[in-house]
Amino acid sequence: MILEEYIDKAVWERIESFSQEKETPFLVIDLDTIRKNYVELKQGFSNADIYYAVKANPNEEVLKLLNDLGSSFDAASIYEIDKLLKIGVSPDRISFGNTIKKISSIKYAYEKGIRLFTTDSRSDLINISRYAPNSKVFIRLIVEGALTADWPLARKFGCSIEEVKNIIDLSETLDVEVYGLSFHVGSQQRNVFMWDYALLKVKDIFEWAFNEKGITIKSINMGGGLPSKYLNKADELDIYSEKIKESIANHFKDNEPRIILEPGRSLVGNSGVIVSEVVLVSKKSELEHYRWVYVDVGKFNGLIETMDECIKYPIYCSSTGSHEEDTEEVILAGPTCDSVDIMYEKYMYSLPLSLKEGDRIYWLSTGAYTSSYCSVEFNGFPPMKAYCI
Amino acid sequence: MILEEYIDKAVWERIESFSQEKETPFLVIDLDTIRKNYVELKQGFSNADIYYAVKANPNEEVLKLLNDLGSSFDAASIYEIDKLLKIGVSPDRISFGNTIKKISSIKYAYEKGIRLFTTDSRSDLINISRYAPNSKVFIRLIVEGALTADWPLARKFGCSIEEVKNIIDLSETLDVEVYGLSFHVGSQQRNVFMWDYALLKVKDIFEWAFNEKGITIKSINMGGGLPSKYLNKADELDIYSEKIKESIANHFKDNEPRIILEPGRSLVGNSGVIVSEVVLVSKKSELEHYRWVYVDVGKFNGLIETMDECIKYPIYCSSTGSHEEDTEEVILAGPTCDSVDIMYEKYMYSLPLSLKEGDRIYWLSTGAYTSSYCSVEFNGFPPMKAYCI
Repeated sequence: MILEEYIDKAVWERIESFSQEKETPFLVIDLDTIRKNYVELKQGFSNADIYYAVKANPNEEVLKLLNDLGSSFDAASIYEIDKLLKIGVSPDRISFGNTIKKISSIKYAYEKGIRLFTTDSRSDLINISRYAPNSKVFIRLIVEGALTADWPLARKFGCSIEEVKNIIDLSETLDVEVYGLSFHVGSQQRNVFMWDYALLKVKDIFEWAFNEKGITIKSINMGGGLPSKYLNKADELDIYSEKIKESIANHFKDNEPRIILEPGRSLVGNSGVIVSEVVLVSKKSELEHYRWVYVDVGKFNGLIETMDECIKYPIYCSSTGSHEEDTEEVILAGPTCDSVDIMYEKYMYSLPLSLKEGDRIYWLSTGAYTSSYCSVEFNGFPPMKAYCI
Repeated sequence: MILEEYIDKAVWERIESFSQEKETPFLVIDLDTIRKNYVELKQGFSNADIYYAVKANPNEEVLKLLNDLGSSFDAASIYEIDKLLKIGVSPDRISFGNTIKKISSIKYAYEKGIRLFTTDSRSDLINISRYAPNSKVFIRLIVEGALTADWPLARKFGCSIEEVKNIIDLSETLDVEVYGLSFHVGSQQRNVFMWDYALLKVKDIFEWAFNEKGITIKSINMGGGLPSKYLNKADELDIYSEKIKESIANHFKDNEPRIILEPGRSLVGNSGVIVSEVVLVSKKSELEHYRWVYVDVGKFNGLIETMDECIKYPIYCSSTGSHEEDTEEVILAGPTCDSVDIMYEKYMYSLPLSLKEGDRIYWLSTGAYTSSYCSVEFNGFPPMKAYCI
């Protein structure tokens, strides 16, 4: 692996130097990388409002940085809302984006001043109208991004065009404002055309609402989905921003709606490196073709997105420091007594033949969806530590 | 679902009554059920030593109960060892059963008095010999249980017969005692013949060791695997104990080895009930055949073993209290903004048509491998609470 393809040299040196002498496993988050990503995203989508998807990395220092940079926030639960309020985010910069919420959560959010919600069902809309009256609501449309996203989101959230229309119909009898439509093309969506397809559907509903109902819908929440840097190739951010802006211009001409983005992975993904240690290298039999490399991080303490090998992280070994060395394909597994705790056995990583216990393995682009997924104590292992630098 | 097929009526009433008025989601563990399971297991395998697999449920009250009942313990990490020592378990009743361990962990365990280890590789054996000299070692054989177990364990742990022999060879030059062979037929193994196949292999190695090396191996660690009560049918414990004892007698005749069992699921599985609440019932489209039922427990706060729908928990709804009511197949999903957080969409549970938000759904047989797997804060949700009664 060529390190420089995945991480800026200065960032790498900062992280590696910070990591010396610390007991593995742990996650290092480089805040400057997040700052840089935020600025780039703002430049790419200058007219869009950015609502950072807290779930991607709820580390308090990350939230504070993004708050200082002027970001708004997308919260998945009342617990995330509390966390945001605690660090001083004002409620008008928080969206309650989870379409699945208890009445008690809607009430709680409303009491705390939240007035922006997302829904994909009539029963949830009724609850919002009743317990968060006069709020703005995004209606989430189901789109077909699941077909090409590395971590698909399509099946569980959103509803059909027909059901979006039913919800708009219903909204007219309720105390809510249909503020916009939302969609999510799937997390780590590498195919830029998926946004175009989704925008076409949105436009269709906008026209229907205006022509049939006299309702002007003001905004589009395009969710997240912009890719981070993993092994599967994705384009640079500017390709996505150019193409998506082109789609918006094509579909909406002079009536460009307000755009909201909810980036998670694309803002924090490449800011993180998990530092792990090789616990054991072994073969099950002399005749077996592959060595097993067990490390002290696994599916249940940070690498859950290796489930079905969806996300393929760039991996860097420090065993020799040389890139020239002989390598061999290995099976990579975690430290627990659970055989589901295997990260990669279909996709084979080539690691140095000289790899041995105690060597460090660095998991690049692990700033998103790692530490918050850690199990509380599976096999007794404590959740992975995280450091911001 | 007929409740009484999965849970004793008195236990159910105890749990249901305790659960009233408590905020969901939470796990209730009935300690009497664990006591009963332990006594039954001791009766079924009167000559065996029981090492409870702490990872199945590391709740301190559960560990204390089993300690009081005389159980020994199988620990997967130094953290579990610490937890056991803290409640007063003496180190000679603890086995360090994880074949994947750091040198620092071996040292730590040895310092704490642990003298029983499991290994499946030569490099780990060398580490044990060096950092835990004079300890007893189980060598773990790979067996084919993965083919039929609901939560397979075969691929990641254990080694081939040939490699077991290599490890025995190597042990002669080291400061360790090959105390026994171990195997694990896979967790929630419902096919009793898998134990027979494994025992045949063990016998073969015992004979080789005696005839070729003059080594008498004294014991067999049969790991866990005995099933708990889920939807997929399994036999009662006495069928397994009878058949397994028959296999041992057949293979070993008058030279019956010492038997160790490491039950986890079979001891605590049916002691637990997760109490959850319906958050939302919706359809993505009027034309869709299935309703989605979202509850406040999911893959990342307790139900990770629904991954690939491996474990099918018995589910009981309180919506009407009547079993006669009309039901309909639904998709069952968790509360997070992650579409991987769907419990069942291939296997369809039939739940009452009248099911609505706020109704309780009880997940039976959730005493094992639930609370310890909870994520620390995915989507901000706190880990599920657990109560012992």
